[in-house]
Amino acid sequence: MINASIITIGDELLIGQVVDTNSAWMARELNKAGIALVHRVAVGDQYDAIRKALDEEQQQADIILLTGGLGPTADDITKPLLREYFGGRMVVHEKTLEQVKYLFTEVFKRPLLERNLKQAEVPDSCRVLFNTRGTAPGMWFEKNDKVFVSLPGVPFEMMGLMTDQVIPDLKARFALPHIAHRTLVTFGVGESFLAEQLQQFEARLPETVQLAYLPHFSLVRLRLSTRGMDQAEVDSRIATLFSELQQTIQEYVISNQDESMPDIVSRLLLEQGKTLGTAESCTGGYIAHLITSRAGASALFKGAVVSYANSVKQDLLQVSAESLATEGAVSQAVVEQMAANGRKQLGCDYCVAVSGIMGPDGGSAEKPTGTVWIAVASEAATHSRRFHFRFDRQRNMELTAMHALNMVRQQLLSN
Amino acid sequence: MINASIITIGDELLIGQVVDTNSAWMARELNKAGIALVHRVAVGDQYDAIRKALDEEQQQADIILLTGGLGPTADDITKPLLREYFGGRMVVHEKTLEQVKYLFTEVFKRPLLERNLKQAEVPDSCRVLFNTRGTAPGMWFEKNDKVFVSLPGVPFEMMGLMTDQVIPDLKARFALPHIAHRTLVTFGVGESFLAEQLQQFEARLPETVQLAYLPHFSLVRLRLSTRGMDQAEVDSRIATLFSELQQTIQEYVISNQDESMPDIVSRLLLEQGKTLGTAESCTGGYIAHLITSRAGASALFKGAVVSYANSVKQDLLQVSAESLATEGAVSQAVVEQMAANGRKQLGCDYCVAVSGIMGPDGGSAEKPTGTVWIAVASEAATHSRRFHFRFDRQRNMELTAMHALNMVRQQLLSN
Repeated sequence: MINASIITIGDELLIGQVVDTNSAWMARELNKAGIALVHRVAVGDQYDAIRKALDEEQQQADIILLTGGLGPTADDITKPLLREYFGGRMVVHEKTLEQVKYLFTEVFKRPLLERNLKQAEVPDSCRVLFNTRGTAPGMWFEKNDKVFVSLPGVPFEMMGLMTDQVIPDLKARFALPHIAHRTLVTFGVGESFLAEQLQQFEARLPETVQLAYLPHFSLVRLRLSTRGMDQAEVDSRIATLFSELQQTIQEYVISNQDESMPDIVSRLLLEQGKTLGTAESCTGGYIAHLITSRAGASALFKGAVVSYANSVKQDLLQVSAESLATEGAVSQAVVEQMAANGRKQLGCDYCVAVSGIMGPDGGSAEKPTGTVWIAVASEAATHSRRFHFRFDRQRNMELTAMHALNMVRQQLLSN
Repeated sequence: MINASIITIGDELLIGQVVDTNSAWMARELNKAGIALVHRVAVGDQYDAIRKALDEEQQQADIILLTGGLGPTADDITKPLLREYFGGRMVVHEKTLEQVKYLFTEVFKRPLLERNLKQAEVPDSCRVLFNTRGTAPGMWFEKNDKVFVSLPGVPFEMMGLMTDQVIPDLKARFALPHIAHRTLVTFGVGESFLAEQLQQFEARLPETVQLAYLPHFSLVRLRLSTRGMDQAEVDSRIATLFSELQQTIQEYVISNQDESMPDIVSRLLLEQGKTLGTAESCTGGYIAHLITSRAGASALFKGAVVSYANSVKQDLLQVSAESLATEGAVSQAVVEQMAANGRKQLGCDYCVAVSGIMGPDGGSAEKPTGTVWIAVASEAATHSRRFHFRFDRQRNMELTAMHALNMVRQQLLSN
């Protein structure tokens, strides 16, 4: 196996001001290419720490990917250190210099400063990976038969360089195995329950196959992976095992591909030529946001009414004042009116409505925090269900959105 | 200084299936307590890798925090390894056993499995940190005058243990310095532009003071930090420098505390006793979601109309068919009608409306992808502005939301 390690550079990581989303994305891309990530390390903008990481990571990896430490306000530590570590002298990379000038004058429309121009300087011991998306270039070094790639920390820029240059170049540089992954998505059952069902299946798995459990709120993704030098053999092994996996836990499976809940609902809507709308109280537009985050949402999504205030429930969703007064906003009567009337108002085939108490305040003995009513209206009928989530505001909101979309999914499948 | 290191354990981190949000949160909490995080490392569920990390991290840190590797489907590697590393034998922690039984029978309402019961087992060389939020207990070990704390990887559980037990116990165990942080938030100018303005200020900073630049879309947070054993001296130093920092870049500052844009807008609305609503096309409910993610939003937020389809713009926001036909949905005429009519429909004091093309599809020569119109309506007037963002769908949506909320902020401040 070809092994990789990621060194993430930046004081901002050690004071906790940014969450490192780059590493997970890079890990996935490396994995898909047949490269195993074996170690990740985060260090501050400090000469000794970066140098120590470079020395250590090459002990266990063939490929060392560095991100960050290249910004215009970084302490100018990483680039001189790389020049010293890999030799050579600093030179101006002309194409990058033009790009810096272009971005500042034409795109950012901001004054071009001396420190921005310095971003075009690179050690001449590297091969420059031209950054079409920003000012800091990528740099490819080789030493002791190991590959070191330095990339900017801005996710959008790092991703462009990885996809267009680093991954293809690593594939050309190393003899990589074929990798196969298949993902099954389950809903409504826990990780340990699934593990119990799969005990025998797991016990029989050959050493070249891994099964990972990836819980995300009420959803668990089961990822089966295998690798080998013979593609036909890899493909056939994964196909057989995946079908066995599917059969073992069939009743909990909601998808046999790596999709999120909004993905699944959107796909079903598109397949059936149906449209969705939402009438949201406690989720405050979050369900609409999950659906519209995906490109092409306009083909299946009509719109939403976020009726946070009761006046909006009455004015835009024609919820009866009587139901609000006698049953309260978090009630079956209100949520069913929201769904059915929302469907008409928004002109959609299906409308999902939610009303609940997300916390931390607003709960009562009768309707404690976490109480949520969800309804789905179609032309034929309105179905509703009461839930009780027991977490903090953020998790209650995620769980509500997942269960609301799951109810839409169930309606779509019952056709 | 007392130094800490974080070891994150789990194969899921190396295949990139989860983003490690724990480390950033832990880094912030350590920092606030006067503990410097100097290193972070992620390893798989592998005996040798975890053991090597334990050996290495104590070379540079006084406190080693471990997260993950304790779940019911983890390979049962971490706990036996900790027993071996710190000595002792495995015993059942009775209070945790009761908690496991309670959670499964009363809360999760799922069958209690053998592997769940094993979560109550701990090496008797540790002090158990009882986990009120889940089944895996925290464990506090000491060896070679270093503190090692093992915590579950579930963020909600880890946060509870850190806040209630680990941080207070670390404060009691070590003589920690006083730490002071002050944050200034700017909008609409770049990181390098600010750095240029602050060149002289930064050059004069004493060695005990750090200035960090934390860009997030159009917003840059400037975080000034200092530490020392004398609290009065620390407080006076940060106060003087922070006021100097404020004065130097006054015109770009939108807040002198660590707030997000939704925080700032929500605070201003509350202070002025005003309410907000949104009429969103291309942002699909994202602005409403940002506002309603925060507890207490019902005091200032009335609701939203997400008018993704033109029919919803006409039916619920009374946008004229003529404007839609002649100017198109992404136009000043349409977005101003959305804002002004949305304000009346939702019964709010301010309504912000957006209509644009987020990409990747939908652009034209006249209105390229990234073209966005934003309007803010109040009782007195409707203000609108055209923007052109040049990134991918997700970033365009973030930037649109930030600029829309900034326009609301400006209206609130012009009162």
